[in-house]
Amino acid sequence: MRAVLSDPHISLAHGNGGRFMRELIEEVFVRHLGAGNVDASADAVALDLGGGEPMITTDGFTVQPLEFPGGDIGSLAVHGTVNDLAVAGAKARYLTLNAFIEEGFESAVLDRIVASLAAAARACGVRVVAGDTKVLRRGEGGGVYFATTGVGVRLPGARPALDRIREGDAVIVSGTIGDHGTAVMLAREDFDLRGSLASDSASVAPLAESLLAFDGLRFMRDPTRGGIASVANEIRRATGLGLRFEANLPVAEAVQSVCDMLGYDPCYLASEGRVIAVVAPDQADAAVLALRGHDGGRSAARVGTVTGRGTRVTLRTELGGERFLEELEDDPLPRIC
Amino acid sequence: MRAVLSDPHISLAHGNGGRFMRELIEEVFVRHLGAGNVDASADAVALDLGGGEPMITTDGFTVQPLEFPGGDIGSLAVHGTVNDLAVAGAKARYLTLNAFIEEGFESAVLDRIVASLAAAARACGVRVVAGDTKVLRRGEGGGVYFATTGVGVRLPGARPALDRIREGDAVIVSGTIGDHGTAVMLAREDFDLRGSLASDSASVAPLAESLLAFDGLRFMRDPTRGGIASVANEIRRATGLGLRFEANLPVAEAVQSVCDMLGYDPCYLASEGRVIAVVAPDQADAAVLALRGHDGGRSAARVGTVTGRGTRVTLRTELGGERFLEELEDDPLPRIC
Repeated sequence: MRAVLSDPHISLAHGNGGRFMRELIEEVFVRHLGAGNVDASADAVALDLGGGEPMITTDGFTVQPLEFPGGDIGSLAVHGTVNDLAVAGAKARYLTLNAFIEEGFESAVLDRIVASLAAAARACGVRVVAGDTKVLRRGEGGGVYFATTGVGVRLPGARPALDRIREGDAVIVSGTIGDHGTAVMLAREDFDLRGSLASDSASVAPLAESLLAFDGLRFMRDPTRGGIASVANEIRRATGLGLRFEANLPVAEAVQSVCDMLGYDPCYLASEGRVIAVVAPDQADAAVLALRGHDGGRSAARVGTVTGRGTRVTLRTELGGERFLEELEDDPLPRIC
Repeated sequence: MRAVLSDPHISLAHGNGGRFMRELIEEVFVRHLGAGNVDASADAVALDLGGGEPMITTDGFTVQPLEFPGGDIGSLAVHGTVNDLAVAGAKARYLTLNAFIEEGFESAVLDRIVASLAAAARACGVRVVAGDTKVLRRGEGGGVYFATTGVGVRLPGARPALDRIREGDAVIVSGTIGDHGTAVMLAREDFDLRGSLASDSASVAPLAESLLAFDGLRFMRDPTRGGIASVANEIRRATGLGLRFEANLPVAEAVQSVCDMLGYDPCYLASEGRVIAVVAPDQADAAVLALRGHDGGRSAARVGTVTGRGTRVTLRTELGGERFLEELEDDPLPRIC
């Protein structure tokens, strides 16, 4: 294996605008992201959106550990931003990348993470066209933090938005919930548990695009920080309507076991490759079938209903009871994304 | 003065996707940036570029101290990105903002910095339309880090690019060099010096736009990290041509004194409100006059010449000698932007 950088660790000199910074950018970032994509010598680059309506989003990534079963901070930084565009009804085309790297960070780990980021970008069909690196003093970073900004174009079809949601609408999810949060938690040394669980981190673009074909699609979101309970509470705040989840919420057995053991509720745990959508009730079953046609949507299900004005967010239990899913206050799992 | 947040310090719960995060975003970010600009409930937002050719850039900001004479990390995060678009020949229209905030950071300081960021954005005519906040564990941040991504549209006029530079071209700067680097250095407690010096942090858009009117404009850059010496070495690497700076480089007297005292070279110190440009020799004097017509360009000057293939970057000294300005290796001043 060829040496990545002449220095096995990142130093402050890699952030100074001189030779070491150029080496870092060229040997790690440009090498993986493709010299034809990133012009390291340009202050700003032109985007070709083919006349489409541009949409933008941005997200920061601070997950710990940096690598976990099913992904790493690099692939997550692509999927998170691509997904924010997808659930807004847009196709991601371009990304920009900010890297904040801690002094002393291992060059080989950085190289591996950037390679993963580049592979995820290629798989999603997005080009990383601009970037910036900063080096943080030792003790003032967590290894590496990323921020990605995504630019895409709006797709034809439904225009999902919170204000389209109506009482009686159906709520569907594209797969099991809480896999990412649980996998990251287990990957931490704090917990003396090792499971076969993997993060669900993935692009939801194919799932979201298949939902856009339904004129009854009201709203989509990727339930990351705070999980589906937080999305439901956001809907409640924005619309005044409540939401009732049924007892059939898809939760992987291993996720449920870990949650039972440690006292977590999967409704509050992050997914990074799922969509929760609100759909007109008469199109819900067809929408679920459409999701199941994708590899990432095999366990899609209709899991709830939008309830009347002034009601709250609830979850029906298997014993037939119903409990409130309140807005999150404490942080069950910091640094999950 | 009204309380900014119910908690005087940022906690991990401000990053968890729940009520505290919403309060942070609404009470600090949306309040200053304008509810009409930022839609805190949207995953992605549409951009109106009026049919112009979109251009994009991104930059990270980790300056220490966070507040310094002439600016702070908030205003810097706007100027830095607006300026990268400006020197590429584009007018900034939209920004996205990522904030990485350290647990325990004072809410009031964050509020002041975001207010400054918002004021700078208004002054530059750019809207902050999307954002994300993450909270870093205590000891894993430097108070606050920002990343901003700017989207603009290409302006009519010259298309500055490195490959347009020719031997014999003139080099001009829009004002004194190294003010930002020196001001930030003095603001650090490490140095027991307090000067009247202020950062030059500002938008260079008016300066850059007036240079675009010259068809002899070859290339522009804002000399931030690594200063004008690093820009010159970048030109050399890209073109194979050298560059000779004359002894008349504009340096503020206070900057020169501090540099003499501490052994720094202003050619390597960052400016955050200056333009260095390469111009056809017959248009250089007119270009300098155009710059001087702006408040930020009063001390603009023609300061050098592009020299032949295989030559290096040099600086003529006042005694008539000439010394090399090598590519930067060590970092004279980390965390300057």
